[in-house]
Amino acid sequence: MATPQFKQLRRSYGFDEVAIVPGDITINPEQTDIDLKLEDFTLSIPIIAAAMDAVTDVNFAILFSQLGGLAALHLEGVQTRYDNPEEILAEIARAPDSQVTALLQKVYSQPIQENLIGQRIESIKEAGALCAVSVAPANTKRFASIAAEAKADFLIVQSTVTTARHTSKSYRGLIFEELLQSITMPIIVGNCVSYSTCLEIMRTGISGVLVGVGPGAACTTRQVLGVGVPQITATMDCAAARDEYRRESGRYVPIITDGGIRNGGDLCKAIASGADAVMLGSILAQAREAPGHGYHWGMSHPHLTLPRGTRIKVGTTGTVEQILFGPATDTGGTQNLVGALRTAMGVCGVANIQEMHGVEMVIAPAITTEGKSWQLSPS
Amino acid sequence: MATPQFKQLRRSYGFDEVAIVPGDITINPEQTDIDLKLEDFTLSIPIIAAAMDAVTDVNFAILFSQLGGLAALHLEGVQTRYDNPEEILAEIARAPDSQVTALLQKVYSQPIQENLIGQRIESIKEAGALCAVSVAPANTKRFASIAAEAKADFLIVQSTVTTARHTSKSYRGLIFEELLQSITMPIIVGNCVSYSTCLEIMRTGISGVLVGVGPGAACTTRQVLGVGVPQITATMDCAAARDEYRRESGRYVPIITDGGIRNGGDLCKAIASGADAVMLGSILAQAREAPGHGYHWGMSHPHLTLPRGTRIKVGTTGTVEQILFGPATDTGGTQNLVGALRTAMGVCGVANIQEMHGVEMVIAPAITTEGKSWQLSPS
Amino acid sequence: MATPQFKQLRRSYGFDEVAIVPGDITINPEQTDIDLKLEDFTLSIPIIAAAMDAVTDVNFAILFSQLGGLAALHLEGVQTRYDNPEEILAEIARAPDSQVTALLQKVYSQPIQENLIGQRIESIKEAGALCAVSVAPANTKRFASIAAEAKADFLIVQSTVTTARHTSKSYRGLIFEELLQSITMPIIVGNCVSYSTCLEIMRTGISGVLVGVGPGAACTTRQVLGVGVPQITATMDCAAARDEYRRESGRYVPIITDGGIRNGGDLCKAIASGADAVMLGSILAQAREAPGHGYHWGMSHPHLTLPRGTRIKVGTTGTVEQILFGPATDTGGTQNLVGALRTAMGVCGVANIQEMHGVEMVIAPAITTEGKSWQLSPS
Amino acid sequence: MATPQFKQLRRSYGFDEVAIVPGDITINPEQTDIDLKLEDFTLSIPIIAAAMDAVTDVNFAILFSQLGGLAALHLEGVQTRYDNPEEILAEIARAPDSQVTALLQKVYSQPIQENLIGQRIESIKEAGALCAVSVAPANTKRFASIAAEAKADFLIVQSTVTTARHTSKSYRGLIFEELLQSITMPIIVGNCVSYSTCLEIMRTGISGVLVGVGPGAACTTRQVLGVGVPQITATMDCAAARDEYRRESGRYVPIITDGGIRNGGDLCKAIASGADAVMLGSILAQAREAPGHGYHWGMSHPHLTLPRGTRIKVGTTGTVEQILFGPATDTGGTQNLVGALRTAMGVCGVANIQEMHGVEMVIAPAITTEGKSWQLSPS
Repeated sequence: MATPQFKQLRRSYGFDEVAIVPGDITINPEQTDIDLKLEDFTLSIPIIAAAMDAVTDVNFAILFSQLGGLAALHLEGVQTRYDNPEEILAEIARAPDSQVTALLQKVYSQPIQENLIGQRIESIKEAGALCAVSVAPANTKRFASIAAEAKADFLIVQSTVTTARHTSKSYRGLIFEELLQSITMPIIVGNCVSYSTCLEIMRTGISGVLVGVGPGAACTTRQVLGVGVPQITATMDCAAARDEYRRESGRYVPIITDGGIRNGGDLCKAIASGADAVMLGSILAQAREAPGHGYHWGMSHPHLTLPRGTRIKVGTTGTVEQILFGPATDTGGTQNLVGALRTAMGVCGVANIQEMHGVEMVIAPAITTEGKSWQLSPS
Repeated sequence: MATPQFKQLRRSYGFDEVAIVPGDITINPEQTDIDLKLEDFTLSIPIIAAAMDAVTDVNFAILFSQLGGLAALHLEGVQTRYDNPEEILAEIARAPDSQVTALLQKVYSQPIQENLIGQRIESIKEAGALCAVSVAPANTKRFASIAAEAKADFLIVQSTVTTARHTSKSYRGLIFEELLQSITMPIIVGNCVSYSTCLEIMRTGISGVLVGVGPGAACTTRQVLGVGVPQITATMDCAAARDEYRRESGRYVPIITDGGIRNGGDLCKAIASGADAVMLGSILAQAREAPGHGYHWGMSHPHLTLPRGTRIKVGTTGTVEQILFGPATDTGGTQNLVGALRTAMGVCGVANIQEMHGVEMVIAPAITTEGKSWQLSPS
Repeated sequence: MATPQFKQLRRSYGFDEVAIVPGDITINPEQTDIDLKLEDFTLSIPIIAAAMDAVTDVNFAILFSQLGGLAALHLEGVQTRYDNPEEILAEIARAPDSQVTALLQKVYSQPIQENLIGQRIESIKEAGALCAVSVAPANTKRFASIAAEAKADFLIVQSTVTTARHTSKSYRGLIFEELLQSITMPIIVGNCVSYSTCLEIMRTGISGVLVGVGPGAACTTRQVLGVGVPQITATMDCAAARDEYRRESGRYVPIITDGGIRNGGDLCKAIASGADAVMLGSILAQAREAPGHGYHWGMSHPHLTLPRGTRIKVGTTGTVEQILFGPATDTGGTQNLVGALRTAMGVCGVANIQEMHGVEMVIAPAITTEGKSWQLSPS
Repeated sequence: MATPQFKQLRRSYGFDEVAIVPGDITINPEQTDIDLKLEDFTLSIPIIAAAMDAVTDVNFAILFSQLGGLAALHLEGVQTRYDNPEEILAEIARAPDSQVTALLQKVYSQPIQENLIGQRIESIKEAGALCAVSVAPANTKRFASIAAEAKADFLIVQSTVTTARHTSKSYRGLIFEELLQSITMPIIVGNCVSYSTCLEIMRTGISGVLVGVGPGAACTTRQVLGVGVPQITATMDCAAARDEYRRESGRYVPIITDGGIRNGGDLCKAIASGADAVMLGSILAQAREAPGHGYHWGMSHPHLTLPRGTRIKVGTTGTVEQILFGPATDTGGTQNLVGALRTAMGVCGVANIQEMHGVEMVIAPAITTEGKSWQLSPS
């Protein structure tokens, strides 16, 4: 009898399963360099605000750019479907759970108004801020030129899973090489989770890759489709692809871990796993300036026949400045993310993000299984 | 001293422990082919409704066939014991938890009326639907000919654990080779979970194998007997047996993962693990047209001396059409199962079920440990 | 620099982490032989009732023997400290949680009355039942001769951890070889969990070994001492020792898995891991005839300075006959344990306990992670 | 294509994941030697009370020394910032959860009064007790001479992560070799978690190393920074460094596991993993004599911009003597820690701490997954 050929499974890891090992030397956190270089741009913090309607609107994008980061405006969300998106956002926040999916399906079936695309981008640019816009692959050709005309700085082509090759009988897939010839702004593409896909996307010549399928707080892709790779493994694999691409091309294309980051600890682990930056959703939806009114929902949530998200209540915990730079009043790691990153780099004895990629990590039991059995004191 | 000979244990995996890795290319979900071929029959969706009294009655079988699937009518359940099974089903739904085991034991100790077997099958066939019937091995010889006479299309021989060889002093075990000579309809046999058993069953010449011991939502086999293999490993092992059997015989015998599937994600993982189709119980018991009135119970539940099931409240969430094809109002993956399968195949870049067997999977922490610590917004 | 010498850790397994794989053939459960041979005695069921005050008193021992098993009477519990133990047992059952440890410490500090030892044994023997008595190693010399005189059938020498060699300056340790020369009844010794200790104990010539440190429902040894080995691994290791001892001596000394068995599934897994029998505590404390009034507590619980147990409420669920032979009204595996064992052996296709030792097992996720997310119907 | 270079992760273990295997011989617990030798000092119990404000004040330090241990007074806590720290401690205990972080930030921003440092140390020494004081690396040069002058016995240099080399542009890092030349009392340094850091620290000539980053009950370092190594692995790695350092230097430098120990079981596991002693925080904060009034908080909690701790309610369960030596009224292992250690050593058959380092351990599922599904009886 032949030896049975069983399918093989590789072990993957998520944020809760790993920890960073401190280094043999320590350095002063203030001496760490956490810049993110994206083509000709340099961001002073390696954080991108997610292209989600509960996170980024025009005002948030301006503020976030002023603080050193970059916020992505979704060109297919409420901002471009409604003249007055604030009303819609308030309505979503007020809707009871039982009705919110139906409401979102209705809200997002309104047509996109192309004139609003230009308007939103211009409002951001007029304030002197950097402007990134996000579109789905199917609509990229249609919206990219409008965004270019309005002088957006970055184009993010993003869907649950994006690859360098898409097969369809009904329409011709987006070819990044072609897109790059018509658009001069840097293009960031995502999301992907594997070495080979990431490498193939980089080889098209784009400028950044978003990493992460399924882990977001407001995302139910794993229940609905069974698809996804935990973020630590996804980041490690795509980091290996980035390093391979640098070897073969000489170009360094940053990868950005997107989804599932709940606190400074997760952010630091993403960077230690190889990420050059992170994209944050729910953690920024907690900002007083975020348009979600203390709620957050996935952009796959409103899908008409196969919704893959939940609306979650994240609450409002402080200003976006506090979330990024403190001072923290919360002790659970949701504030002063930049201070946390610099401190972690300090105890690891590394001076910049690329050195942070080399720190040792261990597979560690989730924090709840160690020493945390005490009752928190009642408030 | 001799080296101690410790018993060896192999690691096995269940649905919650794995995830599907997206592919290097993506394809349009509408271009995917999900047909299930069972001998001369082709089902347009690879889903079989379980032979459980809370799922399949005559009306459900007709409807499910019209939608492209196949429903299995249990010939030893309430449908063949009672002229008016609806009354009994309503009584089961009304019974309090503390009395339901005793009630089920009484309900299922009523004798089977052979004339009802023919009647139920004929009702299904008269509607132009495909008809599958399920019997236990011990009663197969007695009921198979009645089912054949009534023109059932498929015979399912099913028990908790079925093998090609059964030893008993009190009666002669069922020999599938003999059964195949007297019955011309395709025979599906189950359940099994291992490579060698599956291969041995296929070698008898039957037409399909049900995979799964112990994982069903209404099944307590693992508490009661300690027996069972998690569904991902069971499916992978039986898929290896199917492939080996094809190599040695040239025949392709589909395997059907039966039990424990709670949402589209689980369904997609079963297929990616090697299943050609799935059998669904509790997820279909949620349909408005299901006879269980929002409840579901295992067919081993009523056992007189060793009951191995629980009655669970599954609720009524939508029509069977919605569960299969959407539109989904639930975002947790219990509706639009076919859309979910096609979408997962799309992001994996595979065009048919057999290609889906080849996609990469990872061992991944359960979804609850990643990014899901937010409070759901109160309704 | 020398390579660091890190301490190595071996993986061990408990009941919840494994499952039994069904066999390639099945046999009729009624044809299975589950006898336990202990020297010249043959028990018709491989189950010993624990030497715990909530489980075994005189009446329970008689009944349990009549049903085919063996119950162990603790010679250092309430039965030999009190003329009227029923009153004390009722008081323990009534005590509030906050006072029960102090009460137990008081109850068990009453002196043992040697005349009661003989009386209790004689009451059991007069009923024609088999009688096993349990003593701690330190008291064995003192009580063993009294038990022998009263015609007990088995002597169980039991403590949390018992080895063949004990070192003490204050008293001379128990030497099993010497004990065997003065006592003619079979001696069962425990508890141990490792290959080498089990082998060493067997080589002293005793007749059975109890396996298990720390897993019992009413035991907190792992929190208090950090000591213990999960039962599946402990049983497998001691089974390897038994097999090695048989090879070297020709004698077959049964091992009995003691502690942590909550249902038929655990019992079947213990046997499949290599146990010849099981010792049950909390599951039998649920019997109407058990002296614990629906409560159960460990015999290390009353320790004056380092109590290592909890009192747990187990409830009263049925007669001991129901627990052993059914019919079961509970569907969670706590009743008809013998039926469960025979059924599991049937689906594994094995005819006796020793064949059951050879069945395949897998490491499987705990049952709660697979398919059990439904709400149980409200009662 | 080159083989992808994925980042590698090593598996690490925490207290809940391991268990100690009993030995082949047992010894009388009273014959065990648990002394801790720290240079010329010998403690009769291997337990150090943490330098945390909820644990150690002057009175506690005196009492703990009298009982055979050593308590560390934090020179940067409330004891040296306030003439009357009792008032402040009571205020912290009374503060509601929502205000406690802000209160702690305010309390700890009061300046340290250098005269109080001398006063506190002298109060301890006048009572004839051993006195250990704790300082952060940045303040060591400033406070060490004051402590030396006041005749403290031990200097503990402690921060979340301390290494032998610290890089800073703004101040010159602490060089242990230099410190050792100016200070004659033994220096204990921490915390570290890895082989190489521990070895490097030992090579500076210091007298003891504290092991543990992140595991403490009142510590949120892993959420905030993602940094930490579970204690079993950290202890094993640092023990290997200690053994290597002894081989190369002939000096034996004890390691002290600090953080995450919740009960006697954890303490025993730390010692079995290679620790010479343990430092206890929350478990001692439960003592009637502890200054925390039943609360406990981390010393990183009051950090002004990046607080990394929580205040937890630990309750008051008994005297410190009871916690150390019993008699225990709690059965969960939080009392009679010394008795637990001696008993564990007894069942492992080891006579002293260094022999305990050699006992076998297994990776074992958390205790909650084995046999603990019963409902505790209601109080």
